[in-house]
Amino acid sequence: MEENNDGYFFEGVEKLLEVWFAESSAGTGDLRNISRLDWENLLCHVKCEIISFTKNDLIDAFLLSESSMFVSRRRWILKTCGTTTPLKCLDQLLQLAREQGYTVVTDIYYSRKNFTKPEVQNAPHRGFYEEVYYLDTLFPEGRSYCLGSINQECWYLYTFSKPELKALPDVIAEEAIIKDTTEPDQTIEILMQNLDQDVMSCFSKSKFTNGREAAIATGIQHILPDMLIDDFLFDPCGYSMNGINERGEYMTIHITPEEKFSYVSFESNVDLANYTKLINHVIKTFKPGKFLVTIFANKSSLAYETMKELESEYSTLSNWQRNDMQCCNFPLYNLLFAQYSRKLDSSST
Amino acid sequence: MEENNDGYFFEGVEKLLEVWFAESSAGTGDLRNISRLDWENLLCHVKCEIISFTKNDLIDAFLLSESSMFVSRRRWILKTCGTTTPLKCLDQLLQLAREQGYTVVTDIYYSRKNFTKPEVQNAPHRGFYEEVYYLDTLFPEGRSYCLGSINQECWYLYTFSKPELKALPDVIAEEAIIKDTTEPDQTIEILMQNLDQDVMSCFSKSKFTNGREAAIATGIQHILPDMLIDDFLFDPCGYSMNGINERGEYMTIHITPEEKFSYVSFESNVDLANYTKLINHVIKTFKPGKFLVTIFANKSSLAYETMKELESEYSTLSNWQRNDMQCCNFPLYNLLFAQYSRKLDSSST
Repeated sequence: MEENNDGYFFEGVEKLLEVWFAESSAGTGDLRNISRLDWENLLCHVKCEIISFTKNDLIDAFLLSESSMFVSRRRWILKTCGTTTPLKCLDQLLQLAREQGYTVVTDIYYSRKNFTKPEVQNAPHRGFYEEVYYLDTLFPEGRSYCLGSINQECWYLYTFSKPELKALPDVIAEEAIIKDTTEPDQTIEILMQNLDQDVMSCFSKSKFTNGREAAIATGIQHILPDMLIDDFLFDPCGYSMNGINERGEYMTIHITPEEKFSYVSFESNVDLANYTKLINHVIKTFKPGKFLVTIFANKSSLAYETMKELESEYSTLSNWQRNDMQCCNFPLYNLLFAQYSRKLDSSST
Repeated sequence: MEENNDGYFFEGVEKLLEVWFAESSAGTGDLRNISRLDWENLLCHVKCEIISFTKNDLIDAFLLSESSMFVSRRRWILKTCGTTTPLKCLDQLLQLAREQGYTVVTDIYYSRKNFTKPEVQNAPHRGFYEEVYYLDTLFPEGRSYCLGSINQECWYLYTFSKPELKALPDVIAEEAIIKDTTEPDQTIEILMQNLDQDVMSCFSKSKFTNGREAAIATGIQHILPDMLIDDFLFDPCGYSMNGINERGEYMTIHITPEEKFSYVSFESNVDLANYTKLINHVIKTFKPGKFLVTIFANKSSLAYETMKELESEYSTLSNWQRNDMQCCNFPLYNLLFAQYSRKLDSSST
């Protein structure tokens, strides 16, 4: 919500924070026992609010005024766009987790695409170095990466990269249980820009009265059909949705439709044998001019093998130019990054 | 050659610049026709001097006061350490190449490891952003990358990443010939730090009178036995060598032996089916505490398949911890980056 010489601008690009805690010694910890009031207070530091809530037996899903928050027993995910400050709530998160018996952080991932307008962000998000500096004050031995071309289309990541447990500074880690590395785990993100304006026009109050109508018109509900959808159409425009299924998996879509700075993000941890179909489905739904894909997958996940398939299969799509593809091998995860733009002589997907 | 509060320091970490030109329209161009005087004048801008010279039918090899320069018909390689300024000679290089009929740059690679003391470098080398900014003024559409963990052990690369020809701003590119993508081409670099001081003590005038004696004592001449070696032992310490063979391949080794900032670099474009043996040989020769490897290989090269082998084979060496491994797919090349450190409980290779 920034005004500058170019007029109204909104940064759709989200900051994504994911934290995993080691099992509590008593084995009774559960982040979902944290109260609504505590979450609301925590989100004050981020500068956003809860606007809707759904849950099932495995996961709580909060729709926020700027994107989403997902809470599982030991895993917390916060994704916020605009000029929000998600890193500023980490102190509160660690305190609330401690009250649940969670004293040890086993994994942390902080990531984002390059901002369209970094100059309108607030501290500590005015640049990736500042974000890393802030995270380094809270966590030991984090590592930071830039995938893609620096200063162009790129994606930043801060993460623990060692399999050993990371202890909070004031905590003795000896009784903590090492995260089960055989449990399949994966996250796919598709971050899209320069989107088709016919599609984008659906995410406006001038066209539809609520999120459900916009989702049906654009086919969003078909992307992962087993997801229970909670969505919201903003006034005058913009769309957010959370989906959760009975296996505890989530999906989330956030749309900034304005032509000058259109942006759509898709994210899910759904366990699929092949992500190529999903990527194609998302791309055909939103019709971006450029997009990037990241896939995190641990070695026992089906997605691990899909990486190589994607490399050959997706790059042959004739309307797309692959500008970058990189793979990082971390101790417990592999990460695939790819960035595509529509070829200049092509106009349809 | 910088003095600061910590006493004497020398930056062994090199800046590596490689430029390929498109075949000249007359087909008569040859960078090796550039005169010694012209090279000496060019190297004034870098702030280094020629100290030795060898050649064969395919390649000219210059040993410099700070590292090396290799000149083939269409390819130019400059590698310089210390506080030299290699980017500052690019204008001269393009002018000298033009006089040989080379008007189109097809490929450029500028790379370096993170400096140990970036604060003692001179413009435009005071940071990677400054280097990129400088290169962007000379070349269109370059892309820049950081492999490894930002602000820790990392390796920077600026490169053209498109297969299309890159024209110099004042040149019409239409008659230029596209580089033959089926010609095998590869470069391996092994950059080592925290080296064994018994090995390093050999690269000192107090122990040996010339480079040949130091090379024999440490086994350098066995690393790639078919190379004709031209080497130099600096006073009081330090070692540089160029090797060239009859296939036009080169190798080059540069050693900064001082314990406080020990550094050894190995580089070669030798075409091998398997780089694992070569890496092991180099590591066993110099015994570093940490090292990084980069391998550039185009798809028709044997080295391309070696990448995957390296990933599994080398990481199982029990005394080494792999901190990072990344792979980048460029249009014509694949790049492997890996960074290792000796495990804390191991004392031998």
